[in-house]
Amino acid sequence: MFPTYDVIVVGAGHSGCEAAVAAANMGSKVLLATMNMNTIAQMSCNPAMGGVAKGQIVREIDALGGYSGIITDHTAVQFRMLNRSKGPAMWSPRAQSDRMLFAAKWREMLEAHPNIDFWQEMVTGVIVKGGRACGVYTSLGLEIQSRAVILTNGTFLNGIIHIGEKQFGGGRAGERAAKGITEQLKELGFEAGRMKTGTPPRIDGRSINWDALETQPGDEEPGKFSYTDTPRLARQLPCHIAYTSQEVHDTLREGFDRSPMFNGRIQGLGPRYCPSIEDKIERFADRDRHQLFVEPEGWNTCEIYVNGFSSSLPEDVQFKALRKIEGFENAKMFRPGYAIEYDFFPPTQLKLTLETKLVSNLFFAGQINGTTGYEEAGCQGLMAGINAHLAIREEAPFVLRRSDAYIGVLIDDLVNKGTKEPYRMFTSRAEYRILLRQDNADLRLTPLANQLGMQGLQERMQRVAAKQEAAEEIGRFVRKASVEPGQVNRYLTGIGSQELTQKVKLHSVLIRPHVDLQSLRQVLPELNQFLGNYEQEFIELAEIDMKYEGYIERERERADKMNRLENVRLSDQFDYHELTALSKEAREKLTAARPATVGQASRISGVSPADISVLLVHMGR
Amino acid sequence: MFPTYDVIVVGAGHSGCEAAVAAANMGSKVLLATMNMNTIAQMSCNPAMGGVAKGQIVREIDALGGYSGIITDHTAVQFRMLNRSKGPAMWSPRAQSDRMLFAAKWREMLEAHPNIDFWQEMVTGVIVKGGRACGVYTSLGLEIQSRAVILTNGTFLNGIIHIGEKQFGGGRAGERAAKGITEQLKELGFEAGRMKTGTPPRIDGRSINWDALETQPGDEEPGKFSYTDTPRLARQLPCHIAYTSQEVHDTLREGFDRSPMFNGRIQGLGPRYCPSIEDKIERFADRDRHQLFVEPEGWNTCEIYVNGFSSSLPEDVQFKALRKIEGFENAKMFRPGYAIEYDFFPPTQLKLTLETKLVSNLFFAGQINGTTGYEEAGCQGLMAGINAHLAIREEAPFVLRRSDAYIGVLIDDLVNKGTKEPYRMFTSRAEYRILLRQDNADLRLTPLANQLGMQGLQERMQRVAAKQEAAEEIGRFVRKASVEPGQVNRYLTGIGSQELTQKVKLHSVLIRPHVDLQSLRQVLPELNQFLGNYEQEFIELAEIDMKYEGYIERERERADKMNRLENVRLSDQFDYHELTALSKEAREKLTAARPATVGQASRISGVSPADISVLLVHMGR
Ligand SMILES: Cc1cc2nc3c(=O)[nH]c(=O)nc-3n(C[C@H](O)[C@H](O)[C@H](O)COP(=O)(O)OP(=O)(O)OC[C@H]3O[C@@H](n4cnc5c(N)ncnc54)[C@H](O)[C@@H]3O)c2cc1C
Ligand SMILES: Cc1cc2nc3c(=O)[nH]c(=O)nc-3n(C[C@H](O)[C@H](O)[C@H](O)COP(=O)(O)OP(=O)(O)OC[C@H]3O[C@@H](n4cnc5c(N)ncnc54)[C@H](O)[C@@H]3O)c2cc1C
Repeated sequence: MFPTYDVIVVGAGHSGCEAAVAAANMGSKVLLATMNMNTIAQMSCNPAMGGVAKGQIVREIDALGGYSGIITDHTAVQFRMLNRSKGPAMWSPRAQSDRMLFAAKWREMLEAHPNIDFWQEMVTGVIVKGGRACGVYTSLGLEIQSRAVILTNGTFLNGIIHIGEKQFGGGRAGERAAKGITEQLKELGFEAGRMKTGTPPRIDGRSINWDALETQPGDEEPGKFSYTDTPRLARQLPCHIAYTSQEVHDTLREGFDRSPMFNGRIQGLGPRYCPSIEDKIERFADRDRHQLFVEPEGWNTCEIYVNGFSSSLPEDVQFKALRKIEGFENAKMFRPGYAIEYDFFPPTQLKLTLETKLVSNLFFAGQINGTTGYEEAGCQGLMAGINAHLAIREEAPFVLRRSDAYIGVLIDDLVNKGTKEPYRMFTSRAEYRILLRQDNADLRLTPLANQLGMQGLQERMQRVAAKQEAAEEIGRFVRKASVEPGQVNRYLTGIGSQELTQKVKLHSVLIRPHVDLQSLRQVLPELNQFLGNYEQEFIELAEIDMKYEGYIERERERADKMNRLENVRLSDQFDYHELTALSKEAREKLTAARPATVGQASRISGVSPADISVLLVHMGR
Repeated sequence: MFPTYDVIVVGAGHSGCEAAVAAANMGSKVLLATMNMNTIAQMSCNPAMGGVAKGQIVREIDALGGYSGIITDHTAVQFRMLNRSKGPAMWSPRAQSDRMLFAAKWREMLEAHPNIDFWQEMVTGVIVKGGRACGVYTSLGLEIQSRAVILTNGTFLNGIIHIGEKQFGGGRAGERAAKGITEQLKELGFEAGRMKTGTPPRIDGRSINWDALETQPGDEEPGKFSYTDTPRLARQLPCHIAYTSQEVHDTLREGFDRSPMFNGRIQGLGPRYCPSIEDKIERFADRDRHQLFVEPEGWNTCEIYVNGFSSSLPEDVQFKALRKIEGFENAKMFRPGYAIEYDFFPPTQLKLTLETKLVSNLFFAGQINGTTGYEEAGCQGLMAGINAHLAIREEAPFVLRRSDAYIGVLIDDLVNKGTKEPYRMFTSRAEYRILLRQDNADLRLTPLANQLGMQGLQERMQRVAAKQEAAEEIGRFVRKASVEPGQVNRYLTGIGSQELTQKVKLHSVLIRPHVDLQSLRQVLPELNQFLGNYEQEFIELAEIDMKYEGYIERERERADKMNRLENVRLSDQFDYHELTALSKEAREKLTAARPATVGQASRISGVSPADISVLLVHMGR
């Protein structure tokens, strides 16, 4: 019934969709096998993409030719650039999407790809022959052959949903769990663990007193995620902000004895940084209120997502507590929040390509690697898709370094450190934040993907060239132009900056704190006219390059140094026990983790800089 | 957590959605409880509404204030008036809808209703106190109170999906079955049975050779379902026609030994008039080919529905056979067809209001009453919704007679005759077809619903008045106007009708066979100018009234006679065994069925006209 595919992707969540697209755009013939074609790219939890560090990942996905950014741009109901008041390393785009449109657009774009076929069914196992994945088994007993398999099962593997004292099997509210895969992989020697995540109740927007909430409108000049020619929002929906209170907390506490989190029924570890409301009031007992983001689920629905109120307390407790929130006095629920426990595979079992160490041509991506979040899932899918394609052609793998991308940080963290609790990206996880900005993801990554042969990057590549050129031109202009005190002193005084006493280069003014090109344009007509030739995004890049030149250079140097370590490869056979100059702990950890490079070794906890020196000396460096 | 609702509707399929809207528009506070809010108004099978007899039902639903017609108009991708070449009693509107948009629009319209609340969860039982339904139990153990309950569980009750030799629980592909309700109702004394239905494989439209198929475009001037101001299609998608062949049949036969239909694994009876392809080649062994309608699933998807190829044969057999169809040589499946077995409740357990005889204020509607089809389900929901509202206010029930509507025929058939196999509407089931036309459903029904207090009928009522007036004006004009031979003889000769020899009334020309107003307009400028004042639909009504006047009158008389019998009520306590003048069979059947009127009694099989006379004499008529 089926041809032999290059790549079979199991699951059409955010990870599976990106995996399918990436492999297909590399030129592979892909089968996307998923339990229900009506739930392709469902947003299981909040209808939003991006946010701090996550927004950077979405832009990186886009720069590499993924679709998450494009789809978000097409289906957004609100866009905001978070952290605008901080440095550019912190700027993080975030969009609310229309949940239904988001899924519909993904399906439309997948169907438009000639290299992607679809099959609706539950996959129950991986066909492995001679240590190599070569297809999947399905619930109907079919065998579908392929040269590589990517598993992206999300929260579905032996999923159990908890609400108060009740629990039942399920991969997501109203959807069934998937069985068979964990059991088979364990037999093959894989280690599996349990994690949990949670979601808040959904509310009937018609029952909320909106006047009692703070309004949080979208950006006045909304940005977007994709570097391609996607539309910019002309109309936006507002979000709202509500607050819990002592009374709300007290009500929630009434249910603690029936909480599956607190009475031990849930064993899997939950995401520390995306805690349930009961977690929050337990862990931050001194906080007398928590902020809740009250978010629309789409243009035409009254369904409301209460971000920050994730809970697995009994539904009556959730309800009673909700109604104590100002503005929610008459709130009606569509369904209670719940927690879900599911199987994951500790990601230390993976190579940096996301291929498993145990079975070749078998890749894991997304939530089953112990991550949480659409963005984290999507980028893993993309990388697995690219590497599956490369693996079956026996081409060199594609690995992003920590200094290349948040995606590099994510995968390096997972593979080398593993994770005990659902892993979420933060800017603090990246040591080269000023390099890994949302505004330059295209410059960093599009040429790399293009070189690999990823299709569909023409538009992005042209833009990269134009952007780079523009930044240089602007830089040259600013360095060459001079300003007279009379032109800028009023402005400088206004922002508390020292007045000029003589004519200086524009560049020396620009690099002062609080000075920016946007303001300088107002007082320097010549500059204004010159910049009129350029897109805002191009001007921003030039400005950041100049204003943060020092930081950027220093980080680049640090990165280069680290990357040199990254280039010192460690053999798979290396016998660390023989190298007695290493600390005992280092010997054990290195033997267990088998890092591929000295760089990786340096990031294993328990391996000290001294141990690294020993290694380098041993390697003759 | 919940207020006491007037009506709880269980299930948000076509039946549940119409039930919720009807009760809500009557003024009831409604809770729509359904397993998954993302599947509200899913079209389980083909993405089409209407068709022969079914199209009439959709227009009746619309005339009574239901939403199915409105939603179909908003989401159609193709519209055709079937049977245009036959008499107007046979004209049947049919539309292909965009599956996703259809569901989205339903949800949008439900959410827009202030009287409808939502709850996403599985209902596991009905709360019954003192023989009266007063709420539901849910899987979380909640009890939600109400004054009436409408069950519309569709194919979900203990649903089992069959594909070849495999079977698994499910309410629809990828969705879980519902448990608990059948078991509880049986304990309460209800009888339950098993039925089955099936669905064809879904195909990747990109793999079909469209040039090898016949094209079936939509109507050039597409009509629409709703009598309200819904949009008319400006752009349409074509359907296509393909054919099976001996080779296809032979291939299918190879799987017969593994067919759950033929080897007895499926016990429920399937829809005789919507048979699976294996049924068709078995029952019509002499037919060397069957027609297949190859239908799009929406504007933006390549998913294709192969109408006529429903099957539960093993998936490899389905696939092999599909590929033997001309144009399908390279076809790819998204998923195989399957059969589903599910519980239904023999509808003889219902009153004509769809309330159960056993438990008051408990209503059943849709597929669980043994019907098949969205239209049949939707109209039952509507009637149950109205009657639930009336019951809790102890107002007179709303029952449509067989001469009022196809809906009347449907419910009367179900309640009085029951059904052994999935009941589907046909024009042949209606004895007053010329009265129950698609063009006059509004005249027949809108005033009735309006009188009941159904909200939202203003626009429809105004149109009814305008339409009636227009038909009368046109009638008067045609009866008064005269035509000279010279004006029409060329036209008459052209259609093989006798020439006029003298001036006659236009009316006498119009009522000739093959003559129609549209043609007369071409040759009679005065008529043309007069008709220019009227909508096409109004002109059609006037024309039908005149051309079919005789038939219409005769049917009206027959209907009146029958309706007089309908008015002769039979007591619930009536002891038929005492009335020894009745045949033995009649006594038994009447005792079992307990018809409410002599009219109903007359339609019970085994009750003869002689028995009816005995009854009438006994009643003193
Ligand atoms: C209840 C809940 C709450 C969450 N809360 C948060 C949160 O607060 N913050 C946050 O950042 N993230 C949250 N998440 C996580 C977020 O939804 C996931 O990180 C993201 O969706 C993972 O993407 P994925 O592609 O790995 O898996 P998923 O999106 O789960 O997709 C898995 C896909 O695989 C399919 N599938 C699974 N098994 C099989 C099989 N055997 N055969 C065929 N198909 C299969 C499924 O049908 C589905 O399409 C939550 C998830 C859930 C379910
Ligand atoms: C596989 C298949 C093939 C079919 N083929 C044909 C065909 O060829 N021709 C034809 O005319 N018709 C066909 N039908 C029938 C058609 O789909 C139904 O007649 C129509 O959908 C029935 O509408 P309904 O509202 O009664 O039920 P459904 O549309 O089945 O809706 C039932 C709803 O109730 C919900 N529900 C069920 N149980 C519970 C519960 N306990 N708690 C909460 N919610 C619940 C479900 O989630 C669903 O929303 C087919 C149906 C199926 C499944």
